Amino acid sequence: MQPFEAALQETALAVEQVLDQILTLEDTAEARLFTAMRYATLGGGKRFRPFLTRQSARLFGVASSNALRAGAAIELIHCYSLVHDDLPAMDDDDLRRGKQTVHKKFDDATAILAGDGLLTLAFEVIADPATHEMASVRTELITGLAKASGGHGMVGGQMIDLAAETTMLEIGGITRLQQLKTGAMIAFSCEAGAILGRASIQARDALRGYAHDLGLAFQIADDLLDVEGTMEETGKAVGKDEAAGKATFVSILGAERARAQAHLLADQAIEHLSFFDEAADQLRAAARFVVDRKN
Amino acid sequence: MQPFEAALQETALAVEQVLDQILTLEDTAEARLFTAMRYATLGGGKRFRPFLTRQSARLFGVASSNALRAGAAIELIHCYSLVHDDLPAMDDDDLRRGKQTVHKKFDDATAILAGDGLLTLAFEVIADPATHEMASVRTELITGLAKASGGHGMVGGQMIDLAAETTMLEIGGITRLQQLKTGAMIAFSCEAGAILGRASIQARDALRGYAHDLGLAFQIADDLLDVEGTMEETGKAVGKDEAAGKATFVSILGAERARAQAHLLADQAIEHLSFFDEAADQLRAAARFVVDRKN
Repeated sequence: MQPFEAALQETALAVEQVLDQILTLEDTAEARLFTAMRYATLGGGKRFRPFLTRQSARLFGVASSNALRAGAAIELIHCYSLVHDDLPAMDDDDLRRGKQTVHKKFDDATAILAGDGLLTLAFEVIADPATHEMASVRTELITGLAKASGGHGMVGGQMIDLAAETTMLEIGGITRLQQLKTGAMIAFSCEAGAILGRASIQARDALRGYAHDLGLAFQIADDLLDVEGTMEETGKAVGKDEAAGKATFVSILGAERARAQAHLLADQAIEHLSFFDEAADQLRAAARFVVDRKN
Repeated sequence: MQPFEAALQETALAVEQVLDQILTLEDTAEARLFTAMRYATLGGGKRFRPFLTRQSARLFGVASSNALRAGAAIELIHCYSLVHDDLPAMDDDDLRRGKQTVHKKFDDATAILAGDGLLTLAFEVIADPATHEMASVRTELITGLAKASGGHGMVGGQMIDLAAETTMLEIGGITRLQQLKTGAMIAFSCEAGAILGRASIQARDALRGYAHDLGLAFQIADDLLDVEGTMEETGKAVGKDEAAGKATFVSILGAERARAQAHLLADQAIEHLSFFDEAADQLRAAARFVVDRKN
């Protein structure tokens, strides 16, 4: 097996190419918008979600080009959400992936519109026959992506997160918040591979169980990084949750128990993959990566 | 033929019902988001775009339920664009359809998220088999909606519009701005009926010509309303273009020539419909309505 970090890097490069082609910069009056959309999307990010899509798609013999397009659409959604979340009216962040955030580099209005443009483009990319020859597969992907990223998914999680600055959440509330805010999209990133591969119900269930535990482990690790990471490592401001007085897995469980919980969830995630042979080894490695990462 | 205003009103009521069903308010932690999404969407608006979809769909014998769902998705996009355009970072409007804008009623962050949620929901609605039994028709609708509302459509037009506050546009630049900002979605509203009805190329071309002229006439009338309308009639602040020093059809052509141009475009739009029999009479009436309306 290729080392995990090399495989992740390889997918990141391939996704970057697809995104670069999708976000063509033409000499039109709206070029500023596409400059901002490209700035928000290209040249950074682990591309962890597309990696999950590509690896889960491999389990079902899906062509790499199809998996990369679906992964690129997911990444467009991820990037738009970062642009909007960073706005002064939301988390008010100046730094992202070690660069100025979009509204700092351009302005607030451009950031709002660039986010809207990326969000819309994600669905255009999936609807294109280049993502899968069967229209029914494409509509299934669109339904899944919309649910995972919409009002009862990522956007809903962000809404709860904003309220969490004034309402102290219990562990159950935080778990639900995170399942919506990051878990739903992580789960869909895996599910997209199964949809592309028209996988059996059993295979989908196994992947869904994996993705559920992976998503929570990912978020607990994120909370730990906010407490223990440095700006140099993470490329963004740290210590924000505590400063905002927000309840997180770490503030409730303490760092040690939170770390133990993340590792337990990673073990559980790997457990779910017993349905698959060694073709799922990179997904197994991804579960370890999620809890061990430094950014 | 039913009087135009009555037909428009009937569709508005039917669309309101569909939107009300789509935007179910559940007792979840993210309820505030859906309250804002409902506030942004329900209880107002002429629903002119869904009317165009329904009337063009009728030409091809499309079931009313299918046309209303596609029309509702288009209206979700229209409503999200108003919510984001009204934000302080954009047009900074306090009043819309005679009510407080979403960010005034809630807050900026909620308005950003409600817009994102509505935008995402539009694609979920179209991807659902209830909109059309054939997945290939649904993907065609999604592609068309994404192009019309995205970076080279409505969002791109909004970007150019922001730049127009500092760069003085000529008539050609304004025409392109408006074709993107409002024309593309008006055109797609008509085209959606043809897609649902799997119409012939000739029928689509005729509708496209109609919609193109209709969209421009619509925008010139909008510019005239901004100069000549009152807040009581329009339900929103007026005189904003002039105050912002923005070039519009009216500032360049003068009110009289702009009005003449709008009527000429309405005539041309009707001309394009000669391909159709009296089934297109409401679309003909719509062209007259667009240039004669007071809000």
